[in-house]
Amino acid sequence: MVKGITKRSEDYSKWYLDVIATAKLADYAPVKGCMVIRPNGYAIWERMQAELDRMFKEAGHVNAYFPLLIPESFMRKEADHVEGFAPECATVTHGGGKKLDEPLVIRPTSETVIWSMYKDWIQSYRDLPILINQWANVVRWEMRTRLFLRTMEFLWQEGHTAHATPEEGQEETLKILNIYKTFAEDFMAMPVLAGVKTEKERFAGAKETYAIEAMMQDKRALQAGTSHNLGQNFAKAFDVKFQDKEGNLKYVWATSWGVSTRLIGGLIMTHSDDNGLVIPPKLAPLQVVIIPIWKSDDEKSALLNKIDSVTSDWKGKILFKVDDRDNYRPGWKFNEWEKQGIPIRLEMGPRDLAENSMMLVRRDTGEKTPMSCDNITREIPALLETIQKDMFEKARDYRDNSTYEVDDYAELKERLKSEGGFYRIHWNGKRETEDRLQNETKATIRVIEENAPKESGKCILSGEPSERRVVIAKSY
Amino acid sequence: MVKGITKRSEDYSKWYLDVIATAKLADYAPVKGCMVIRPNGYAIWERMQAELDRMFKEAGHVNAYFPLLIPESFMRKEADHVEGFAPECATVTHGGGKKLDEPLVIRPTSETVIWSMYKDWIQSYRDLPILINQWANVVRWEMRTRLFLRTMEFLWQEGHTAHATPEEGQEETLKILNIYKTFAEDFMAMPVLAGVKTEKERFAGAKETYAIEAMMQDKRALQAGTSHNLGQNFAKAFDVKFQDKEGNLKYVWATSWGVSTRLIGGLIMTHSDDNGLVIPPKLAPLQVVIIPIWKSDDEKSALLNKIDSVTSDWKGKILFKVDDRDNYRPGWKFNEWEKQGIPIRLEMGPRDLAENSMMLVRRDTGEKTPMSCDNITREIPALLETIQKDMFEKARDYRDNSTYEVDDYAELKERLKSEGGFYRIHWNGKRETEDRLQNETKATIRVIEENAPKESGKCILSGEPSERRVVIAKSY
Repeated sequence: MVKGITKRSEDYSKWYLDVIATAKLADYAPVKGCMVIRPNGYAIWERMQAELDRMFKEAGHVNAYFPLLIPESFMRKEADHVEGFAPECATVTHGGGKKLDEPLVIRPTSETVIWSMYKDWIQSYRDLPILINQWANVVRWEMRTRLFLRTMEFLWQEGHTAHATPEEGQEETLKILNIYKTFAEDFMAMPVLAGVKTEKERFAGAKETYAIEAMMQDKRALQAGTSHNLGQNFAKAFDVKFQDKEGNLKYVWATSWGVSTRLIGGLIMTHSDDNGLVIPPKLAPLQVVIIPIWKSDDEKSALLNKIDSVTSDWKGKILFKVDDRDNYRPGWKFNEWEKQGIPIRLEMGPRDLAENSMMLVRRDTGEKTPMSCDNITREIPALLETIQKDMFEKARDYRDNSTYEVDDYAELKERLKSEGGFYRIHWNGKRETEDRLQNETKATIRVIEENAPKESGKCILSGEPSERRVVIAKSY
Repeated sequence: MVKGITKRSEDYSKWYLDVIATAKLADYAPVKGCMVIRPNGYAIWERMQAELDRMFKEAGHVNAYFPLLIPESFMRKEADHVEGFAPECATVTHGGGKKLDEPLVIRPTSETVIWSMYKDWIQSYRDLPILINQWANVVRWEMRTRLFLRTMEFLWQEGHTAHATPEEGQEETLKILNIYKTFAEDFMAMPVLAGVKTEKERFAGAKETYAIEAMMQDKRALQAGTSHNLGQNFAKAFDVKFQDKEGNLKYVWATSWGVSTRLIGGLIMTHSDDNGLVIPPKLAPLQVVIIPIWKSDDEKSALLNKIDSVTSDWKGKILFKVDDRDNYRPGWKFNEWEKQGIPIRLEMGPRDLAENSMMLVRRDTGEKTPMSCDNITREIPALLETIQKDMFEKARDYRDNSTYEVDDYAELKERLKSEGGFYRIHWNGKRETEDRLQNETKATIRVIEENAPKESGKCILSGEPSERRVVIAKSY
């Protein structure tokens, strides 16, 4: 057992917190439920931001910044929205020592303040579409918090777009869902199911909510990103109309969508192991660490020379570091970088130098292979790609092997309890059935998959007809 | 006169707001004193962030994220700090509909919450230095606000470092001051005076505050960035000690430093003119805009073909855009990009195409020159550098020509009133003199320059001896 890390098989929740602590990703803050994202955790978030930001911009989006504080009255303008968010708001009642005339809420999400601005910015079809994203912090008053997965304050991006037609709004909603799926699978190496949520699980104020859902190693689902088609709900609440090409005044169509620092929680629970964090190469702030092992200064400088020549080609291509600190032993360093999840470790002592090779250790598999220095320069970039691919496939196989079709309700209840996993079931589409399912199984309908095949069947509870299966699972 | 922009000579304050409005940089938000940073403004901030972040990281810093909400009691732990910031705090008294046991303040700056965490992170000299920066929003309850220059909520970066010795702390403070000066001059093309603040102008809780000060076009000073040597004040307030190499327990030495979206205000007021925004090439989200002028579709496609070949080399090197929108006329486009401050505009109609040339317009000078297409590909990158340099030199000359040495108090008072500018004066170093100066002239001592030469003189007010001149000016 690794010092400081509980085994997954013993206590999965404790393991999760131990991985975060030993990799120095985050800490609880003085205010209950808030989080400090430490440099190691924030570096992963920066990598995530860079890739997502690039993808959003390539799809035509621009960034902006809307204010943290929202008049309380704004939250009440959209009926479903206030019902969903009012119980979660932090309220500012005093400023500069004086009581405010109207309390302000700290944004739990920014639809209301953004649509109050869009009212001024949109007059004509020429002003559309607006494709704006913002990177920001939000606060939701949560009582049961867990680092990254659910915290009172979290960091996220929230996109808010405005369109001239419902078709464009729907197209945007799905385009973003697809970006999220691509990011999750290609960068996080985290396979996801993408599709639409049930009405019960819809965002407060949305017409439809789409989501990506991943399976964690304890076989529970994690909602990892959502994309909402808001219809004209917010345009109506804030009276945002535009003149179309024919001169008619119409309400604007909207979408909103977001992913948050919760993704870091998902990353941890998809890949990490009993030795600590494992980060996929494409999001690793550091992809390769090289540890020279020396006794004398002469040995050290010979090793560093060789390492310099091996890595001379990597600058700007590979994120690597030579850990030549004097005040820590090699064994301590191996352990430290392992806990931090760095994909590849290269060790080199005097004997390796004599043999012109290094010992290569893969973090994801633990595999140790000596590799000739002549090959290292060239082979490491390819190996990083292999690791990325292997991590995705391992996670996908794990999920697929824990995803089942079940048609018997007693079996569903029993298996959800005993083994967990994702279950594709038939459901009659009714809210009362969904409520009963949730009450009796503690699981929720996660998603109706985009590409779920049509299949005539009978609702697992009511026996009523159903046209396709939905995915049910216990979730975070 | 340009539509929508008041002349500087008529009303400088109104001109400033008009430039922001016509370039669509920012808007006032629904909550008084708060700001919406629109995509055009945010794109400049992103360019600033990218360069600063790179400079901080090259100097060994890492990013992290600390929480927005701070227990009110934390603010009171450092006596000067609470005195300075308590009157500016926004206070959260309710969360999730319930009254909180202890009110929380929205961070006006993060020293207190960060040092409460450093207490856990620092035990030994091995844990030092800590070189952390965060990009975040802060809230200070301001009554008199102005877009970018002073808003209730603003975006900034705040660095918070911890060191084993006072020398290291001082070195860090000056290293950052120098990064700020380099950024202001080399990227913003905004010349600054760098030096130490008087005790009166010191950050609440600092031992020394260093700052960069720029001159705006109305000859008032803008404090553009500050770097604080905090001594052991916060280490003592939060009881943060470390064991040194000899095993002795000592309080840690600290610095903090920040620049904010205020820089965008400084950028505007340094370079822009009666035609709107002017952005230096190194921070322009778009450096070159090319506007084809056509009557027929054939003309349009011939122009676009030529433009494609001229710009084929620029991808990834120059930020450029071809404005081939059908629904706007060329004249409207010229005007639009001029107001947005894009450094270079290239215009090309069928006659230019026949002559294998484009009309080149420099935003900073208004100069129009035809340029052969054979030269454009190669010469534009060099021209961008020339513009950057010219803008800096113009701003520096402007400042230098409005900076004076004055030894007569009556003259100082009169000239501060009638012509403004920076005045290098002798001062006896006493707070009471400084207070009187401020009361009687409405100007403040901005900075005691780093490189101010020793010069024996007499205090302009008291006649007492002084060893070097200080800079006094009216300020934002």
